[in-house]
Amino acid sequence: MAPGTTSDRFLRACRRLPVDRTPVWFMRQAGRYLPEYRELRGDRDVLEAVRSPDLAVELTLQPLRRMDLDAAILFSDIMVPLAAVGIGVRLEPGTGPVVEQPIRTARDLDRLRPLEPESDEPHVLEAIRLLRKELTVPLIGFAGGPFTLASYLVEGGPSRDHARTKALMHEDPPLWARLTERLADLALAHLRAQVEAGVQAIQVFDSWAGALDPDDYGRFVLPAARRLFAGLSDLETPSIHFGVGTGELLGLMAQAGGDVIGVDWRVALDTAWDRIGPDRSIQGNLDPAACLASWEALRPKALGVLRRAAGRDGHVFNLGHGVLPGSPVENLERLVDLVHRTTERATT
Amino acid sequence: MAPGTTSDRFLRACRRLPVDRTPVWFMRQAGRYLPEYRELRGDRDVLEAVRSPDLAVELTLQPLRRMDLDAAILFSDIMVPLAAVGIGVRLEPGTGPVVEQPIRTARDLDRLRPLEPESDEPHVLEAIRLLRKELTVPLIGFAGGPFTLASYLVEGGPSRDHARTKALMHEDPPLWARLTERLADLALAHLRAQVEAGVQAIQVFDSWAGALDPDDYGRFVLPAARRLFAGLSDLETPSIHFGVGTGELLGLMAQAGGDVIGVDWRVALDTAWDRIGPDRSIQGNLDPAACLASWEALRPKALGVLRRAAGRDGHVFNLGHGVLPGSPVENLERLVDLVHRTTERATT
Repeated sequence: MAPGTTSDRFLRACRRLPVDRTPVWFMRQAGRYLPEYRELRGDRDVLEAVRSPDLAVELTLQPLRRMDLDAAILFSDIMVPLAAVGIGVRLEPGTGPVVEQPIRTARDLDRLRPLEPESDEPHVLEAIRLLRKELTVPLIGFAGGPFTLASYLVEGGPSRDHARTKALMHEDPPLWARLTERLADLALAHLRAQVEAGVQAIQVFDSWAGALDPDDYGRFVLPAARRLFAGLSDLETPSIHFGVGTGELLGLMAQAGGDVIGVDWRVALDTAWDRIGPDRSIQGNLDPAACLASWEALRPKALGVLRRAAGRDGHVFNLGHGVLPGSPVENLERLVDLVHRTTERATT
Repeated sequence: MAPGTTSDRFLRACRRLPVDRTPVWFMRQAGRYLPEYRELRGDRDVLEAVRSPDLAVELTLQPLRRMDLDAAILFSDIMVPLAAVGIGVRLEPGTGPVVEQPIRTARDLDRLRPLEPESDEPHVLEAIRLLRKELTVPLIGFAGGPFTLASYLVEGGPSRDHARTKALMHEDPPLWARLTERLADLALAHLRAQVEAGVQAIQVFDSWAGALDPDDYGRFVLPAARRLFAGLSDLETPSIHFGVGTGELLGLMAQAGGDVIGVDWRVALDTAWDRIGPDRSIQGNLDPAACLASWEALRPKALGVLRRAAGRDGHVFNLGHGVLPGSPVENLERLVDLVHRTTERATT
């Protein structure tokens, strides 16, 4: 690639345009599986690391020095804009986000003030500006989706059942609507500022939305998700809408918005695409746990994903969720090459 | 009901026969949401409580004194037969099963000797015999499914990613096949002994099988699950095959076996039944978290489930997973009545 130019393979696939090879990137590609990541981040809290643009830049770039990835994703966390508006959040190693004072009442909602990106999170925008000078592949920015952010705030941390969150949702639908609307606006401000600073695609991680039945998703999450994507619609920037365990929600998530729908491994890629509809791209969906196995075991699993996407434009290869910490780096390196080699076609 | 007779509403629904009302029971109906359960069990470990037949009988009966449930489920745990063959297991409150020495190699497998129910778990069989004298509704026995038991053994405890389990599965398919085959045989011996002692239906909890993609389920779990159900096929006892997040696996689970397929709330009941096929009954599938809300919020959710099952024989109403500890007892009482009143029909 000539210096100063940006590969458009990933961005073209997001728009369902023909590509020379299927693009590939990995959720959490800047992560603990990389020895240089562990060394550089050390014991530092992610939220603290994000506050140093130089560090965030370096952590973002590390996987790209190893692998021929088609996109970079900003080193950050979905809790960053919440911390930026003054919500007390820690990211506990091995646990996840812990919110000091959960949000459960109308009064609590007052603590969720609007985000002013330039003053609340200048370090995020600075990291993006620095990264754009370094990168020859597109940079992806991201935000948490309304259900996922609401769950962390209401539960006060990660949750298996999301019991308090769902109880609030069912018990007080108007309060729930205000909460998710406010979170959609927070995510929107965060995303628009990232785009303005230079990210070339965005992903909404509504990672835990799959905990809901389709009726509840449609009633309690889709409106806020739609609001978020509608707020991005005047931009040229492609958007990806992702969640885990969302097999039954894919049609509704596509309705809410997203040029690309990200799917996990529980649903076969072709089945998922049928549910999403032919007017969207798809991202996914190899089981991250497959990357812990030998290359001999991993290879046919990856080819299986590619086979289910064959013959259509608009596939972005990814795992079905983030890279697991114990994954051998070599497996991911070979995976990138396999995807590229297997899908090579004549340039159109 | 006349003393000495047993209601056959639940058993008829398992066989897709017409019933006077849709039968209802709840997974974990003998559980922490009941004050009398918390008082009686106290701090006792579940595995310890199971070793006292009188206690197990009383804990099994408690919810039936409160509610007009159509089936009882034996107070026990899927780890009971593993503990009975000498695997060191603790059930840690708030965590789940912890296995002292995980099973990860061919040598470890030797520790998994065949179950001899009469000598290894006489207390379980005694509790069943005692219960049959008390009950006027059918008694359900149960066992863990092959993937779920394997995951606890390989991980050494509960796991979000089942990463070690999947790594073993991909890395050493012959060892994995022997492990799951052995676990199927253990579950089979456990279930057959329960049937002989008097249980009138059985449920296989392959609760975590939904963590697998359909290809892996078909290759790595279906054979052992099929072996388990084939081993039950000479019995008259109806069987239920259940897992969480199995929307994409329902057809394969039905192939493996089960007169009834149990489904969680993530998939709409009618969609699930289409995937399972018309030759099976279905059990489910209200989101347990809905029971934490007010009756006004819960009622329409329950009616929604009934509506999706209407007009077909073979629905057993249940939650999509176990009762959550914080559920108000009154909600469950009203739910039982709602299901019965709503589905009342002329006796055939």
